[in-house]
Parts: sequence; C-alpha cells; structure tokens
Amino acid sequence: MVEVYFAAGADLWPRYRDALEAAFVEAGLKVTLRDSAPDPAKIDYIVFSPGGEISDFGPFVNCKAVLNLWAGVEKIVGNRTLTQPLCRMVDPAMTEGMVEWVVGHVMRHHLGIDRHVLVQDGVWRHDTSIPPIARERPVTVLGLGALGKACGQALAALNFPVAGWSRSPKEVPGLRCLSGGDGLEEALRGAQIVVTLLPLTRQTENLINAVRLELLAPGAVLINPGRGPLIDDAALIAALDHGRLGHATLDVFREEPLPPSHPFWTHSKVTVTPHIASETRASTASRVIAENVRRGEAGEAFLYLVDREQGY
Amino acid sequence: MVEVYFAAGADLWPRYRDALEAAFVEAGLKVTLRDSAPDPAKIDYIVFSPGGEISDFGPFVNCKAVLNLWAGVEKIVGNRTLTQPLCRMVDPAMTEGMVEWVVGHVMRHHLGIDRHVLVQDGVWRHDTSIPPIARERPVTVLGLGALGKACGQALAALNFPVAGWSRSPKEVPGLRCLSGGDGLEEALRGAQIVVTLLPLTRQTENLINAVRLELLAPGAVLINPGRGPLIDDAALIAALDHGRLGHATLDVFREEPLPPSHPFWTHSKVTVTPHIASETRASTASRVIAENVRRGEAGEAFLYLVDREQGY
Ligand SMILES: NC(=O)c1ccc[n+]([C@@H]2O[C@H](COP(=O)([O-])OP(=O)(O)OC[C@H]3O[C@@H](n4cnc5c(N)ncnc54)[C@H](OP(=O)(O)O)[C@@H]3O)[C@@H](O)[C@H]2O)c1
Ligand SMILES: NC(=O)c1ccc[n+]([C@@H]2O[C@H](COP(=O)([O-])OP(=O)(O)OC[C@H]3O[C@@H](n4cnc5c(N)ncnc54)[C@H](OP(=O)(O)O)[C@@H]3O)[C@@H](O)[C@H]2O)c1
Repeated sequence: MVEVYFAAGADLWPRYRDALEAAFVEAGLKVTLRDSAPDPAKIDYIVFSPGGEISDFGPFVNCKAVLNLWAGVEKIVGNRTLTQPLCRMVDPAMTEGMVEWVVGHVMRHHLGIDRHVLVQDGVWRHDTSIPPIARERPVTVLGLGALGKACGQALAALNFPVAGWSRSPKEVPGLRCLSGGDGLEEALRGAQIVVTLLPLTRQTENLINAVRLELLAPGAVLINPGRGPLIDDAALIAALDHGRLGHATLDVFREEPLPPSHPFWTHSKVTVTPHIASETRASTASRVIAENVRRGEAGEAFLYLVDREQGY
Repeated sequence: MVEVYFAAGADLWPRYRDALEAAFVEAGLKVTLRDSAPDPAKIDYIVFSPGGEISDFGPFVNCKAVLNLWAGVEKIVGNRTLTQPLCRMVDPAMTEGMVEWVVGHVMRHHLGIDRHVLVQDGVWRHDTSIPPIARERPVTVLGLGALGKACGQALAALNFPVAGWSRSPKEVPGLRCLSGGDGLEEALRGAQIVVTLLPLTRQTENLINAVRLELLAPGAVLINPGRGPLIDDAALIAALDHGRLGHATLDVFREEPLPPSHPFWTHSKVTVTPHIASETRASTASRVIAENVRRGEAGEAFLYLVDREQGY
C-alpha cells in the first residue's frame, strides 16, 4: 500500500479527494490517501500546496517526492528542510485555461474592446481609420514553458507575429524563439503586447524594469499572468503615467490579495484580476499526480521535476 | 483598355485608387480607373458600395459585372435596374478581421472579462468555484459562409465545441454542421454563445425571435456581427430583461448609426459596437476585384457571384 498525504489544505480536500482516488485506481495503484499524517515516516508521497499544513519536511524521512499542486514553486523551492524531489504541476486543463485567459486579454487589447464596454453613451464612434489586424501586431511571450509555449502557439495560430523568450535556446514551430540577455532585448524591442509567463526566481525578479519597458512599442500593453514580482511596480506605473505604456492587465501581485489601497486598483490604465488566470483542475491534475506516483513506485524518472538550482 | 468605374463614394476613393491600380497591374490588366462615368455605356465594370453614386444601373449597357466592396449585398440585390452579374466581396483580410472580432468577444464573454474591466473597486473577488474551460462551453455559429466558417474553425481550434448552421448541408472539419429548419433548432438548443453571421434576406429577417431565444442555455450570450434585422429587437430586450439571456453584443442594427435614444445604448446587458467588426481592406480587396475583372475579360466564371434568387 502506497501512502499519499494530501497536504494542500482543507479547502481543497473535498474537491481533490475523489478525483485523486479515481486517478490512482485508473493508474492501477493501491493507495491510501489521507489528509493528515500522524506518522510522517509512513508517508510515501506528499501532495502539496503552499497554503497547506507543512513547513518542515524533515520528519517525512521516507517520502519519495513532493508533488506540488500549482505550476509556481517559488514559495517552496527555497525550503531547506525539503530534501525530497519536488515536482511542479503541468495540468493540461490548466494550460488550456491559461491559453484562454491570455488569448482573451490579448484580443481585448488588440481590438480595443474596453472603450466599448466602458462607454455606451449613445455616440456612434465609427472611426474611418482601419485598425491593424493580428498579423500587423507583434506580440512577445516571456517564458516558453508549459504555459508560455501553448499561449504563444495559440496566438500565432491567430496570425499574431509572436516572439518567445526562454533561458535555454528553443525551437517552437510558428514562434520566433529568442533566449538569454540579448534575446530579451530583441524580444521586447517594438513589441505591442507582452505576456509574462516566467516563474519567479532570483533571475526573473524585477525583470520588467524601466529600461526594458522603454524597448516596447509606444503605447504597448503588458499582460502579467506569471508572478507579481516579475515587474518593478513603480517603473510600470511611471511608464503608464508618462504615456509610454498604454495599459497593463495584471493577474498576480507582490502581495495577494492586492491591498485595497494599492494604486493599481484606481489606475485608469491598469486592470486587476484576482489571480484567476488559470487554476489547476482536480480531475486532470489528479492524473498527473497518479502518474508521478506510478513512476516513483516503478523507479522511473518523475515528470516536471523542479531544478532546485534554477529555482523552477 | 478596360474601363472600371469606382462608384463606391468619394470617401473611399483616396484609399482605393492606388490599391486598385496596383492590383490591375499585378493581374496584367490594362485598365482605365475612373471615379466618374460621363459616358456610362463605356464602362466595363463597376466597383460599388451602397454609399456611392449609382442607383440606376440602366445606362451601364455594356457593364459586365458590378463588384460590391462589402460582403453584405442586401441594399443592392433588390435593385431592379441591376441586370448585370453582381459579385459580393470576400476579402481574406476582412475575414481575418472578423475572426479576430468574434474570437475577442467570445473570449470576453467566456472569461467574464467585463466584470473586471467595469469594477475595479479594491475588492479581491477570488471566487472558489472553477469556471468552465472552452471545451465545456458550447458555441453556435449561424451562417457557414466565408466568415462564419472561418470564425467557427477558429473557435473550434480554441477547443470550443462548435455547431454551425447553413442553408445547404455542409461538412466543415472540426464543426458539427447542421442545416435547414430542424438543424436550426438543434444548433440553438443549449448553446451558451451564439454568433450570427448570416446575410440579411427575406428568409433570415427576424430569425432570432422569442421562440428561438428560448432554446438557448439559460444566461446565454448573443453576438451579432451579421446584420441588425436578423434579430427581433423587442424579443431580445425581453429575453435580457427576464434573465433568460445573459448579454448581447451587437455590431449591426436596423438603423445605423444606432439612434442615441435606442434602448440598446443604455441596457446594462447590451454592448453596442458601431459596425466595426471587420472592414474590407483596400490592398487585399483590390486583388479580389482585379481577379474578377481578369475573369470577366477571359470569359471565365466570376468569383463570389450573388444568387439573385436567394438574395446573397
Ligand atoms: N496566474 C495564474 O493563474 C498562474 C497559473 C499557473 C502558472 N502561473 C505562473 O506561470 C509560470 C510559468 O508556468 P510554466 O508551467 O509555463 O513554467 P515552466 O514550464 O517551468 O516554464 C518556465 C519558462 O520560463 C523560462 N525561464 C525561467 N527562468 C528564466 C530566465 N532567467 N530567463 C529566461 N527564461 C526563463 C524557462 O526557460 P527554459 O525553457 O529555458 O527552462 C521556461 O521557458 C509559473 O511559474 C507560475 O508562476 C500563473
Ligand atoms: N459587421 C461587419 O463588419 C460585417 C462585415 C462583413 C460581413 N458582415 C455580414 O456577414 C454576413 C456573412 O458574410 P459571408 O461573407 O460569410 O457571407 P456568405 O459567404 O454569403 O455566407 C452566408 C452564409 O449564411 C448561410 N445562409 C444564408 N441564408 C440562409 C438561410 N435562409 N438559412 C440558413 N443559412 C443561410 C449560407 O448558407 P449556404 O452556405 O448554404 O449558402 C452561408 O453559409 C454578410 O452578409 C454581412 O451581412 C458584417
């Protein structure tokens, strides 16, 4: 019997319990799934989220892997008591949700939808100028992981010229792939819409600063469903105020919930969404967890293993 | 020398003049392009839009075809003086623009973007319920012509289950294709988002009426970039008021500009856009016109010939 400890919080337990049980059965595994661990030494795998109950992994001396429920691992990767392998979540349904959120907000800005949603005053504003179509609107996606790659490809399928940027060199069909420091400059220069889907690490913190915002096309739009600290908030607000940037749509923040007094809430060029871009979905994510348990039991390599050195 | 008369209005002449000249040269045609026709009998082809100067086609006794600049022909197809072949516009760039507009508004409603755009009040509303992803959201496209087909396929590529409806039976990869009266009922039943891309004809006028709105999923959204009279306005407002329908996003109206006093403007569940979903674009459309002139001169069949009987 494999012992799996669901340490991702009491809130999520009702949603995940049946889905995990079903996925373990589907994977042909005999698992005891529990939401508490009176005897930590007995636990083989931990399903984890930072909102959960564990901060000291020390007592889990026989734990073969910690399986994170979320894509981002910045809150756990630095935990010194965590000596076990750590896997992040790549959930196909979460990837779909992120693609949808990103496509929706890119389209919203591309088409200028807000001006119609916000102003319905009886004035028929039929501009005679013809707006650009997608193939005339360069978009840049920072991060070409599970999420950035899927978003970039969906945008390319909609005809946007898409540049993508990652740490290691990549080839993704349909995207202009760039990497490293010079690659970043090239990726940002002239971009009209930028989507940040990078993990938060020492290297990516404050990546979007005043100098880099200057590289974008005048009036460019920043869309951040990655992590709040990727952006230097003060530099962003300054660029919006000076008219250098057209708009920012932000789903993630340094402090969440974003405090009611934060200037983002009242800034006319900022749209705040409450960390909803995409969530892990129980049924598909449970299959990913079951597959990693199966791999662990079979002595095979885990999927989506976090590189502790790189921090993601 | 082929004589082409640009009768699509003085406003458009500056935008189309060079594009048409270039397209005729590209097509290997020797054309005299003029924006007036002192001697109508000399004219071989008319580039037309309803805003233009011709209402009587009688004097154009040698005209081989009237080439409409727009996709919709409802304002010209009933003109009894028009005995010449009539071609409507299928412009690849206009099709792209329409796909973008439709994808943008479908995504806007799918994600519920308006609630964030309209309300930025400092309250972090992180719902614990997980919203549907595209594959859980049935969408129906009425009309599977140049525009409806392209929109349906783009939505299917984004994972929406898409049903499409047309007059004649069709097979479009990725779509559930329906036709005729029973097909319409099946197409509408349970749809959560409906996009109307039908031409305006005697058959399609008031197609979206109270009975058909009842077939949709509760809280469904209607998106109309087709033509205003496709919808029974009073039935639409009633369905919105009773909570049967969630929202309507309308780009086209019985009377355009939509009068400032029209209830659509102030209805909280209606978004009005000023007939901007997609416009013909000069460079690509000029190539389509040149190709039809080339065909006419070569004695080949015209592209996009309107069926006068059917009215589109
Ligand atoms: N808002 C939400 O609802 C939500 C939901 C899920 C995830 N997220 C966020 O989205 C992030 C991305 O998720 P993912 O699954 O796509 O992650 P992933 O698969 O680990 O991909 C990360 C990407 O970022 C690149 N990268 C990392 N460090 C870099 C650096 N220093 N310079 C350049 N590129 C760098 C990686 O490059 P290599 O390919 O070279 O490794 C990779 O392409 C998560 O970390 C999380 O923060 C947000
Ligand atoms: N808002 C804007 O900016 C904008 C821009 C361009 C066009 N439009 C509108 O979009 C409309 C569609 O353009 P399009 O180029 O896609 O036209 P199209 O190629 O002629 O396609 C029309 C489609 O509607 C179907 N249809 C016609 N009458 C029908 C009926 N009685 N029952 C069921 N289906 C019927 C046709 O069926 P079959 O395939 O069987 O013939 C066809 O699939 C135009 O007529 C115009 O009004 C609006």
